[in-house]
Amino acid sequence: MDTNKMTKPDNCVIIIFGASGDLTKRKLIPAIFELFKQDNLPEKFAVLGTASSEFTDDEFRSQMKEAVLKVFQDSADIAEKFAAKLNYYAMDFKNEQAYNDLASRIKSLGGTCGSGCNYIFYLATVPSLFESISINLGKAGLNVNTSGFTRIIVEKPFGYDLESAIKLNNVMHTVFTEEQIYRIDHYLGKETVQNVLVTRFANGIFEPVWNRNYVHHVEVTSAENIGIENRGAYYDGSGALRDMLQSHLLRLVTLMAMEPPSSFDSDAVRNEQLKVLQSLRQLTPEDVEKQVIRGQYIASSIRGSFVKGYREEKGVDTNSRTETYAAIKFYIDNWRWGGVPFYIRTGKHMPTRVTEAVIHFKKTPHFLFKESRDISDNQFIMRIQPDEGVVLKFGMKEPGKGFKVHNVNMDFHYKDISNIHIPEAYERLIYDCMVGDSTLFLRADAVEAAWRFVEPIQKAWAENENIKIYGYPAGTWGPDVADNLIEGEKRTWRYPCKNLADDGIYCEL
Amino acid sequence: MDTNKMTKPDNCVIIIFGASGDLTKRKLIPAIFELFKQDNLPEKFAVLGTASSEFTDDEFRSQMKEAVLKVFQDSADIAEKFAAKLNYYAMDFKNEQAYNDLASRIKSLGGTCGSGCNYIFYLATVPSLFESISINLGKAGLNVNTSGFTRIIVEKPFGYDLESAIKLNNVMHTVFTEEQIYRIDHYLGKETVQNVLVTRFANGIFEPVWNRNYVHHVEVTSAENIGIENRGAYYDGSGALRDMLQSHLLRLVTLMAMEPPSSFDSDAVRNEQLKVLQSLRQLTPEDVEKQVIRGQYIASSIRGSFVKGYREEKGVDTNSRTETYAAIKFYIDNWRWGGVPFYIRTGKHMPTRVTEAVIHFKKTPHFLFKESRDISDNQFIMRIQPDEGVVLKFGMKEPGKGFKVHNVNMDFHYKDISNIHIPEAYERLIYDCMVGDSTLFLRADAVEAAWRFVEPIQKAWAENENIKIYGYPAGTWGPDVADNLIEGEKRTWRYPCKNLADDGIYCEL
Repeated sequence: MDTNKMTKPDNCVIIIFGASGDLTKRKLIPAIFELFKQDNLPEKFAVLGTASSEFTDDEFRSQMKEAVLKVFQDSADIAEKFAAKLNYYAMDFKNEQAYNDLASRIKSLGGTCGSGCNYIFYLATVPSLFESISINLGKAGLNVNTSGFTRIIVEKPFGYDLESAIKLNNVMHTVFTEEQIYRIDHYLGKETVQNVLVTRFANGIFEPVWNRNYVHHVEVTSAENIGIENRGAYYDGSGALRDMLQSHLLRLVTLMAMEPPSSFDSDAVRNEQLKVLQSLRQLTPEDVEKQVIRGQYIASSIRGSFVKGYREEKGVDTNSRTETYAAIKFYIDNWRWGGVPFYIRTGKHMPTRVTEAVIHFKKTPHFLFKESRDISDNQFIMRIQPDEGVVLKFGMKEPGKGFKVHNVNMDFHYKDISNIHIPEAYERLIYDCMVGDSTLFLRADAVEAAWRFVEPIQKAWAENENIKIYGYPAGTWGPDVADNLIEGEKRTWRYPCKNLADDGIYCEL
Repeated sequence: MDTNKMTKPDNCVIIIFGASGDLTKRKLIPAIFELFKQDNLPEKFAVLGTASSEFTDDEFRSQMKEAVLKVFQDSADIAEKFAAKLNYYAMDFKNEQAYNDLASRIKSLGGTCGSGCNYIFYLATVPSLFESISINLGKAGLNVNTSGFTRIIVEKPFGYDLESAIKLNNVMHTVFTEEQIYRIDHYLGKETVQNVLVTRFANGIFEPVWNRNYVHHVEVTSAENIGIENRGAYYDGSGALRDMLQSHLLRLVTLMAMEPPSSFDSDAVRNEQLKVLQSLRQLTPEDVEKQVIRGQYIASSIRGSFVKGYREEKGVDTNSRTETYAAIKFYIDNWRWGGVPFYIRTGKHMPTRVTEAVIHFKKTPHFLFKESRDISDNQFIMRIQPDEGVVLKFGMKEPGKGFKVHNVNMDFHYKDISNIHIPEAYERLIYDCMVGDSTLFLRADAVEAAWRFVEPIQKAWAENENIKIYGYPAGTWGPDVADNLIEGEKRTWRYPCKNLADDGIYCEL
């Protein structure tokens, strides 16, 4: 069965707000191009880019062609055909009147798409514009479509705290129904993230041990080996908690922790995810002091090269208290996970780039093999990136006299399923929106529940001067003090690579 | 910790009965030599070979040196030193008087071993001599040793049916205590067989699903890709049931099925094994007709070469009803395994040489991924030989749209633990006997329990003319009808390699 033979979506126009931006160039247009190449776009289809810059259609087309060719070097011919589907319209997003003209322009694409066309608005602008664009679309009547569907994709971050997320939901709901709104988190578009669900629910062997009776703790790590690059001004207003933990990583936890849904219907799946978020034990201000560690990278030397500290970065306040590292211990108060600690850590300028979720199993109730020491716990590692795959770490007999236990790995590397096209996250998600499958998009209630969990941390950090920000040298695994979060004798975070300072880097899955 | 640094056994003499035989040359002497090389023999040590052939010590030494050098080509110097520890004594095993002389000869080795020496008698003769040798050792007073231990290793087969096994036990128990008797089954000396216990009991993740709630069935296969070679006369009096199933393979099943022992004390482990054998559901004559398949290889062509059928082999009766293939379905009536079918098959002239035990898990209680067909069951494969290791077969997400399940493998190959000396089965077992560890030897009660299970099959086959012997072409996986034994929709035996007739052979772990 050829998995690339997908149902063709109904004819539609995608209107991208923020078409001159980086995301459009680097991700959205290449993703739509890939769908085109794989013949997964509708028969009649157009893209209308819009931003404040004045471009002609041709200028926009040639920019986008260039962007596509950066990713797909050998596709000049197809890129040429693809470019014909692209159009541009310059407008000021805050100018109500412009939306009426936009409406006409969209309809003038009727020749491409037919009068019974469907519309997808893609908000790829700065988040502060999401509300006004939504309202103005409503005023111009672009929120409803008597002849087909109208959907709106909203980029992350969706709000910057609980209050702003609720407000944005409320405003959008005055214009669009929840079913029309597709809140995107590109993490959920990743194959390996979705694979968490298949691994758990397609196999008879994992689910029986996937609970408090057998799991000692669950660990999620997302490390980047770069700093904030040239995004200092943006990052200093955000930080690791907002940028990574509240969004991607809590999302990953919901997939690791959720109950099996009754079906793969999008609401059935998202109801189960919501239940996890609603079961997160709220942290008190005292809990935040004990269970959350924040850090900031400080200057160091990596492989002989000087690396700036965070506060020395361009665009960053020299007294900044924004965290580039966050680690948290928390609990999910339900029957499956009662009493099992969950840990998340994320940071910039760590020794390597890695995202993984690890189930650490309890030791056997009775250990028979007295001759063996240093037996690690059984671990099931789901590697999201890079070297995507899964590993089971367990003990086998060490050859020779007696019964000594030796730690070994069984592994599967996703790249071994080779001859199948693995879609990029945006490709998958844009396609899903076109066919109306919202399973991998965030529902209003889930977004708010995630912010509700993070809020006490944001508050405590803002209000409690006693909560330290630990410095950690760029190229290391973050503040040592974070090791103390992990409960249990001799247990620490998993260190798949050594600190860069340790000279030479060896990363294991 | 260096695993080859083993405790040195106490000084001893090993007296091998049947020293001119094949087993001594090919297995016993090389195993003792390897112990010598690894410096795992006692300070004072001697081997006394005995058989009816008249050899001088020097002749025996040079034969054994040659045997050793066949296995260890580069060890001429060490083999020379080793040979000095070997001695020979010619005798007629049925001649009572000769045992008194043997006793003197053993004592004359006192110079090597000291007067406070220990003795191990190794019965490597034809089984029909086991009783008389034991009795004669007793009459000569060689069964007791006031200054140390005396142990006796008995080669397999231990009896050829229940009655003869009981009789042999009774006779031996008049001379030796059970603690002195080491019934050997070299299968239990294999690292990968012992690893079944470590894998099960050193890990928190396997044991919870290792029972009737999660296991659909258990499958054990032992296939040989050779025929009976030049052992026609012996084999025609034995057959696959006696030769493989009753001994090695039931043994492997006990390791797969046993409860965790309270300690690794030899009786604690063997008590649990006995419980499994005692829980085997006895087959009625009707059960034998339905649940046991026997076969005989018939002439065929393998890769263009003609291969004789079994009845055409030298030494085999042209109307022989001896099976070269046996497959059986049976149950273990206890709380862990109630209702779970177990299957064993073994045969000669199959497509490849492989021994493996496979846990087939039940499907998930609810299958969410409707788009997926042909999802195999989850399997945990323990490969005993060759390509020793373990594999977990399970489902992961197939890249692309939707949630389709793709069958993948996670594997561990034992050869990846490389820089450790992996002892041969006999090396391990002879060492264990020297240090008095009987864990891997068969106790009288277990041997009898295994024969008790096999007896109704032997009887039915002997008495019921209606039970067919199916022919199967040499180089195939045995009679097709054996597939019907396996319960469950679309379930068959695992075929790790295709039939040779299928042109080209591809074996997967």
